[in-house]
Amino acid sequence: MDMSAYPLLEGIEEPAHLRELPPHQLPRLASQLRDYLLNSVARSGGHLAAGLGAIELTVALHYVFNTPHDRLVWDVGHQCYPHKILTGRRREISRIRKLDGPAGFPVRDESPYDTFGVGHSSTSISAALGMALAAKSQGANRKTCAIIGDGGLTAGEAFEALNHAGDVRPDLLVILNDNEMSISENVGALNQTFARLIAGGVYGNMREETKRVLEHMPAPMREFAKRAEEHVKGMFVPGTFFEELGFQYFGPVDGHNIEELTTVLERLRDLDGPRLLHCVTRKGKGYARAEANPIAYHGVKAFDPAAGLQSSGKPAPMTYTDVFSQWLCDAAAADSRVWGITPAMREGSGLVEFAKRFPDRYLDTAIAEQHAVTVSGGLACEGERPVLAIYSTFLQRGYDQLIHDIALQNLPVLFAIDRAGLVGADGATHQGAFDFSYMRCLPNMTIMAPADERECRQMLSTGLSIDGPSSVRYPRGRGPGVTPDDNLETLPIGKAEIRRKGKETVLFAFGTMVEVAEAVGAEIDATVVNMRFVKPLDQDCIEMLAQQHNHVITLEENMIAGGAGSAVIEFMTAAGIMRPTLQIGLPDNFIDHGEREEQLELVGLDVNNVSNRIKQWLSQAPLPLDEYATEK
Amino acid sequence: MDMSAYPLLEGIEEPAHLRELPPHQLPRLASQLRDYLLNSVARSGGHLAAGLGAIELTVALHYVFNTPHDRLVWDVGHQCYPHKILTGRRREISRIRKLDGPAGFPVRDESPYDTFGVGHSSTSISAALGMALAAKSQGANRKTCAIIGDGGLTAGEAFEALNHAGDVRPDLLVILNDNEMSISENVGALNQTFARLIAGGVYGNMREETKRVLEHMPAPMREFAKRAEEHVKGMFVPGTFFEELGFQYFGPVDGHNIEELTTVLERLRDLDGPRLLHCVTRKGKGYARAEANPIAYHGVKAFDPAAGLQSSGKPAPMTYTDVFSQWLCDAAAADSRVWGITPAMREGSGLVEFAKRFPDRYLDTAIAEQHAVTVSGGLACEGERPVLAIYSTFLQRGYDQLIHDIALQNLPVLFAIDRAGLVGADGATHQGAFDFSYMRCLPNMTIMAPADERECRQMLSTGLSIDGPSSVRYPRGRGPGVTPDDNLETLPIGKAEIRRKGKETVLFAFGTMVEVAEAVGAEIDATVVNMRFVKPLDQDCIEMLAQQHNHVITLEENMIAGGAGSAVIEFMTAAGIMRPTLQIGLPDNFIDHGEREEQLELVGLDVNNVSNRIKQWLSQAPLPLDEYATEK
Repeated sequence: MDMSAYPLLEGIEEPAHLRELPPHQLPRLASQLRDYLLNSVARSGGHLAAGLGAIELTVALHYVFNTPHDRLVWDVGHQCYPHKILTGRRREISRIRKLDGPAGFPVRDESPYDTFGVGHSSTSISAALGMALAAKSQGANRKTCAIIGDGGLTAGEAFEALNHAGDVRPDLLVILNDNEMSISENVGALNQTFARLIAGGVYGNMREETKRVLEHMPAPMREFAKRAEEHVKGMFVPGTFFEELGFQYFGPVDGHNIEELTTVLERLRDLDGPRLLHCVTRKGKGYARAEANPIAYHGVKAFDPAAGLQSSGKPAPMTYTDVFSQWLCDAAAADSRVWGITPAMREGSGLVEFAKRFPDRYLDTAIAEQHAVTVSGGLACEGERPVLAIYSTFLQRGYDQLIHDIALQNLPVLFAIDRAGLVGADGATHQGAFDFSYMRCLPNMTIMAPADERECRQMLSTGLSIDGPSSVRYPRGRGPGVTPDDNLETLPIGKAEIRRKGKETVLFAFGTMVEVAEAVGAEIDATVVNMRFVKPLDQDCIEMLAQQHNHVITLEENMIAGGAGSAVIEFMTAAGIMRPTLQIGLPDNFIDHGEREEQLELVGLDVNNVSNRIKQWLSQAPLPLDEYATEK
Repeated sequence: MDMSAYPLLEGIEEPAHLRELPPHQLPRLASQLRDYLLNSVARSGGHLAAGLGAIELTVALHYVFNTPHDRLVWDVGHQCYPHKILTGRRREISRIRKLDGPAGFPVRDESPYDTFGVGHSSTSISAALGMALAAKSQGANRKTCAIIGDGGLTAGEAFEALNHAGDVRPDLLVILNDNEMSISENVGALNQTFARLIAGGVYGNMREETKRVLEHMPAPMREFAKRAEEHVKGMFVPGTFFEELGFQYFGPVDGHNIEELTTVLERLRDLDGPRLLHCVTRKGKGYARAEANPIAYHGVKAFDPAAGLQSSGKPAPMTYTDVFSQWLCDAAAADSRVWGITPAMREGSGLVEFAKRFPDRYLDTAIAEQHAVTVSGGLACEGERPVLAIYSTFLQRGYDQLIHDIALQNLPVLFAIDRAGLVGADGATHQGAFDFSYMRCLPNMTIMAPADERECRQMLSTGLSIDGPSSVRYPRGRGPGVTPDDNLETLPIGKAEIRRKGKETVLFAFGTMVEVAEAVGAEIDATVVNMRFVKPLDQDCIEMLAQQHNHVITLEENMIAGGAGSAVIEFMTAAGIMRPTLQIGLPDNFIDHGEREEQLELVGLDVNNVSNRIKQWLSQAPLPLDEYATEK
């Protein structure tokens, strides 16, 4: 990018250069950084609104703290782009979230300024607490600061960390970046408290009034009044909440006033103990369109900043999320027991329409996956039919609840698991790589994976018809393009579908890999099975086909370890069916960001790689037992 | 039990009978219930102190609420014995936690009064919220009440549920059973606030003082004062915390004053919206020894109430927990980077001695598994060597954090996983049945399972030496009795140990099953391998031995689906080694309470069953490929 429009920013290759600037230049730097970020993300796509809202905070933090010696821990990381630009990655930022470009989130391997890898929310206070305790133990004169949004504060882990920090009292500064937003609208009682008090502007006035009250108190009450002062504040600012958790509360301050920020931060930096600074910011700040519509500008594709986001005019092709969205409304219209539940992903999970049409059966739990699973269990206990819409990677947060509150009690909760498999630009933290493995070991679970959109809808209806826990896991984005039926037809449980009859080799494919298997199967004239169910497995089908073919191949978009293919070989082993078998799935490593197609190619799950891999394997694979016998 | 000492209790076969009593008889009933509970648990063993502390609360709740039409949701469930006695299970309570007796926790299948199955803490508010929302949606005139301890309140899910309930405002009563205890001592800033304010008896005095202050305020301040009153309270009672989360706060009340309790509950029952009643109780109440030492009397074996718990005189045989406990102290003495971390299980996990000797490197995070994992990650980032002592079943609560904060970032955190496999009387919620499956699919993890105590210590040292995440999983109780060495010797990573050379059949055994495999191996002259590592697997050893033997058997105390045996067959499949193979492990169902030995027998993992199963299988198993070839 031509840097002539950003002369101050151009001189900053690392935060040390920033710290050489006189304070009066900081607003100008912030302005250049904001423009740079906007123009860069407008070209590359990526997370925009959170970064725009954190410009002054980022500049002030690196100005006041001696990074990377002092530790900044960003929560979630959507807001880390300005941080990456100031910490030596300005040139690379145009390739953010692209293959071999910087990650969209802080990553330890990428830079010493990225102190902790994040992606899911609400871990920053925990991690920073660990770092602060280590600093103390090491006698290191090192400051630690966690920056967390008001959205991130709704997840239980943030509370756990506050409660622990307030007890052990480390030298830890927590910045609450309060923009009244996470990715979707914020919900939860605490955020209502924040919003009401700050938005109403009550704070300033009331604080004065409080002072007057206290000044006019009779003298004997002075000691009482002194102690009361902090707590009376609780009526007007949310400080009491944090103070009851053992934190010193400061603020709220204007998170876009860089002078006020640096002054306050300098003072707070040099204090000790757990302390929290409440900064009020605006998501999308400085770009009017993003301020007006921060949800749309949370994550964007490339666009023209002068024109703003444009609709392409033609309707977008149907995604799996759209299939779910439509199905949930139809199912809820047909059955008054159906609820839709999301942990703060109304837009991403396709619940916007449902929330509008069925507000009484819609629950947004805030970023609270554990609670979202258990509240679904509570509904199911009373005869309701909760459908929990959740990304594969986020269900990891509710794993114990899935086991105890749903599977163990055999409650009819349907998990609509979106973003299963490789997810593209969000990278390693968001891959839905493990759900087959972590669900398959649970008794009572029915696990389905659709080969196409039509089947996805059928499976959702099937899940709803089961009197126990079930899940349908589908990938990010589009499928093969098979239009779903309008009805609520179900599938026979535990039955696979033979898609193609061929010779010698049988491909048992799960979910997204059915399409790949069909292409390869046609090429090598193999039998292709759409397994549909990971659990219960269609054992009859496997037994019959394995015996009719010389070679068996399993295909899935999940870790091989413990995945769907392992279910097949576990069954074959138990049934004493010995066939040379090849398991194709995700390799045993974490997979970084890039386009989904690039990632699939990288791990060898595209048609071309799968085809070559199979052909090579078949050329070397042993013949099965009975073929030997026949040959003799 | 002779019921002549419990005439009132004898008449109560269900709560409806209780509700026929006049109020003045309730204290006498409570007294009989307390005696009955004490005498019964003294014979059967089980959880005592929590139940003793909840006697009046249980009586009052069933007296005021129309159970089971109204829903009581008990958190964790350690305190559910009085509830079970009053709800038709008085006779069975003597067999609590025994095979085919009542479970130690509420279980839906056991009784309509058990509205939600529990075992891990902090789910009750979530579940009750779901039930309350369903009641409203169904237009059912049904009240919902969750009872949670102050210990349970420290886990994030409880906060998530409070925050959500305060937002959606259901007809929900939460009882905070505040006994300043969970299983261990409570920690966390919030509990300090509770403890300080209530224990100090400050509340009553200060409330009066507040009133006087407000009365003496100048008139124009009246409106302000009115609004201030509730919040000024926040200085003296912890109500503000709950009020900021949208709850109406009531209390604290004396949870052993049954008259006050019923009066207050009757009033609160008929209100609407989210409301919290703060009850102060004493764990162990009414049995002086348990009051004095509630940790020791939390869970007991059979004892004489007149004499109290007695030491057997001789030192207890060493458990795996003892091995860990000793090792951690030795490791910490040798390496100043070693930390010990527990989520509120200091006693159970064997950290008592460590906490005393190394208080600066000891962290009790309260019941907060998610945070415990991430704070360990934060420590590891700074070059410390955190050892997280956690039960297998509780690590499920920190699964996402294990994936993101540890495995993905390849941080050197050692997970000392206790209570892996079947755990006995705690039953289905506490079985450590899934950890091989849910850990094995994670890249970067090293997973170990010791065959005996000596190896357990070696593996802990090995884990600490690895520059990445590692885990050692060991069972509840004792092992074969092999005395550990004193040193900190490590094992070669990924190397199995051949324990016995035999013919035709090879047994690949993991952890606890090595002892069983050795017994069976001797009987049938099979080769026995102590695999030691689930990941990385000793592939060379498997390849060599599988080729040298006709039949392969894997043995583990984990679900078969995705477990350690599946790792073996995945490798054999990939390597093209075709051998008839039998996987022995836990079946695909949840396993109820009983003695660990009974459970092992029930699932066929005792020596006798394993031996029979193997012999039967061998008698029918096909010969492997090359044997056929040889025969021809």
